Amino acid sequence: KINGERLWDSLMEMAKIGPGIAGGNNRQTLTDEDSEGRHLFKKWCDDAGCTMGVDQMGNMFARREGTDPDALPVYVGSHLDTQPTGGKYDGVLGVLGGLEIIRTMNDLGIKTKHPIVVTNWTNEEGTRYAPAMLASGVFAGKHTQEWAYDKVDAQGKRFGDELERIGWKGEEKVGDRKMHAFFELHIEQGPILEAEGKDVGVVTHGQGLRWIECTITGKESHTGSTPMHMRKNAGRGLALVTELVHEIAMKNQPNAVGAIGHIDVYPNSRNIIPGKVVFTIDMRTHILDKLEGMVAELMERAPKLCEDIEVSFEAEIVGQFNPPAFDEGCVQAIRQAAERLGYSHMDIVSGAGHDACWINDVAPTAMVMCPCVDGLSHNEAEEISPEWAAAGANVLFHAVVETAEI
Amino acid sequence: KINGERLWDSLMEMAKIGPGIAGGNNRQTLTDEDSEGRHLFKKWCDDAGCTMGVDQMGNMFARREGTDPDALPVYVGSHLDTQPTGGKYDGVLGVLGGLEIIRTMNDLGIKTKHPIVVTNWTNEEGTRYAPAMLASGVFAGKHTQEWAYDKVDAQGKRFGDELERIGWKGEEKVGDRKMHAFFELHIEQGPILEAEGKDVGVVTHGQGLRWIECTITGKESHTGSTPMHMRKNAGRGLALVTELVHEIAMKNQPNAVGAIGHIDVYPNSRNIIPGKVVFTIDMRTHILDKLEGMVAELMERAPKLCEDIEVSFEAEIVGQFNPPAFDEGCVQAIRQAAERLGYSHMDIVSGAGHDACWINDVAPTAMVMCPCVDGLSHNEAEEISPEWAAAGANVLFHAVVETAEI
Ligand SMILES: NC(=O)NCCC(=O)O
Ligand SMILES: NC(=O)NCCC(=O)O
Repeated sequence: KINGERLWDSLMEMAKIGPGIAGGNNRQTLTDEDSEGRHLFKKWCDDAGCTMGVDQMGNMFARREGTDPDALPVYVGSHLDTQPTGGKYDGVLGVLGGLEIIRTMNDLGIKTKHPIVVTNWTNEEGTRYAPAMLASGVFAGKHTQEWAYDKVDAQGKRFGDELERIGWKGEEKVGDRKMHAFFELHIEQGPILEAEGKDVGVVTHGQGLRWIECTITGKESHTGSTPMHMRKNAGRGLALVTELVHEIAMKNQPNAVGAIGHIDVYPNSRNIIPGKVVFTIDMRTHILDKLEGMVAELMERAPKLCEDIEVSFEAEIVGQFNPPAFDEGCVQAIRQAAERLGYSHMDIVSGAGHDACWINDVAPTAMVMCPCVDGLSHNEAEEISPEWAAAGANVLFHAVVETAEI
Repeated sequence: KINGERLWDSLMEMAKIGPGIAGGNNRQTLTDEDSEGRHLFKKWCDDAGCTMGVDQMGNMFARREGTDPDALPVYVGSHLDTQPTGGKYDGVLGVLGGLEIIRTMNDLGIKTKHPIVVTNWTNEEGTRYAPAMLASGVFAGKHTQEWAYDKVDAQGKRFGDELERIGWKGEEKVGDRKMHAFFELHIEQGPILEAEGKDVGVVTHGQGLRWIECTITGKESHTGSTPMHMRKNAGRGLALVTELVHEIAMKNQPNAVGAIGHIDVYPNSRNIIPGKVVFTIDMRTHILDKLEGMVAELMERAPKLCEDIEVSFEAEIVGQFNPPAFDEGCVQAIRQAAERLGYSHMDIVSGAGHDACWINDVAPTAMVMCPCVDGLSHNEAEEISPEWAAAGANVLFHAVVETAEI
């Protein structure tokens, strides 16, 4: 079994870097805090006897050698970046859980045929630079590196420039590595495991996602002196589309979701009617046809709703992935490990996107999830228990070691 | 008649100070540009033989003597500060129109019994330091000077410090001056006069206003992994209240308006359900009972709408004034001047707040309005024609001279 106390201590140590304002973290991708977190992770990996590789997207690969020089490595990991008001475990548990496996193997003197590589994927969160899972997406050939480099944040800073500035742009070509398998441990970020009283979730599928960036254009004018019938209020367009998204998600139950998380209003002055609103719709479900139907309904009805109030609607898909089905062998390795260790478990669909969803396209992949309190995530109050963390890491440990072959 | 060409040249000359990025102006209150504009105005007043007084709020008073030493002055003016993306006429026309009256009287050798004072009120716009019409409000006893001095801008700079820094904090006690009457010329900032094809608007009333700052609180959580029935989406609260504000304004037609111009979403991330939305509702109408009824309906229905979707609604009034009815004598002076000069005119309610709305409480007051293209204001593309400017200034000239008695 892994050392649950050491894992927890490392989680708490990492959480000191980029503290939030309410007990969580603000360690957004390619910030100085991100760099500091990476240095700490590298130091720990060095101490555990690993060699560190960094690719041109800043993805980190800490390698523990195997006994067979020809065997492809088993990869394990997640991400160290956080939301602006993020929790201490989202992503971090998967990276430090991977490190804990290596520390445990060192303690127990376990040697595996396949090398083991612990990975920190750059910019999983996608808040500062959309889309989410950007660097694992480039690794899996979903995006080009140039396209990723040219992404700009709200301050107009380029991804490529910021990666260089924080000192984590490596030399290694992205995506050249071949994997024997990839495993990711992650908190559920939803309420199901806790409600069902399960120790771990065996993730069989992920949800597909569409991020639709919308621009509603009306006309800036004075809130006091523009008569109601002469207004072109882009804010009302936002209101109508907000409710439309909700309606579409509700009528596609069960297992479909939709909401608007990001909204910018222009010029955002108390006495000026909004002339423009830019916002992103997030729609998901794990059945591809249903997902496409939801987007089609939105694209058909939103322009009409806006036209009725004399504002215009434009939309562009800025992030997407289709529902992944994970590798049966890897899923089975996770399920059997949970069984063997005596943890209560259930099969589950991942509500959130994860680096594993992209890597699944280039290597046999699976995920294990641990519950989180109230299903709360992307919130500084995100919480898990040390026991949940240890159970998830133990299952990961057994699945990885079995796959890497002693 | 006034010299329309000279008036227009002065408007264009002033517009060179604090140019915007799209043909308009950025001459926000208490900036270096504001100071430069004041110096130019003072020079012009000096050249016209006026003496300049400046009070402790930076209000400027350029005085042309009358023939009766005991007669109270007739005041005329508006403001030289602009929105960050403001036009060349909003406020400026009223100040330079007042100056043009004095220049014309000098040309024609007109002497009046009452002195004439041209005024530039500090911080009418309220963008850098809320609320709008701040210095005329202190003059009229609506706010204390200390309260105004302690206002801070987005950079944390105090109003009192900035006033001193730019060198326009005078010695004179604020509000000590007694007025025989006050007249303000302003662009309409709305589309009515242009649509009705009128040269000038005779402003009989102003709208009362309530600025209601609202906070809707839900629960931040993941857009992907939070099932629909477990969400507390503050963004949906905003949507419902946006439509409620619209509905309330519509059912109080004619002459009632309502909209939300300023919206901040927290944490404003594509994959986080909004946990909090803060926004300001702007409601106006020129009948006090109706205005209070609109606010009461909002305060009753908004919390219920929010409760139904499990988010909470809180509201606070952060800006307010009651509908002013301008002085019948002064309004009649404006109407008769328009009639005498052969301008087409109509009675109109001012949709926007103006310094005249506060001064109306301490002196007989009226306003004259000129049309503006497409009703556009608070926008760098704000435009008027030289003919409209001249017509408004001519009406102002005649009303002022008649009230000041030859
Ligand atoms: N796990 C996670 O929150 N990933 C970000 C992408 C998503 O929104 O699902
Ligand atoms: N004239 C003007 O825009 N004043 C600002 C206050 C208001 O919103 O009416």
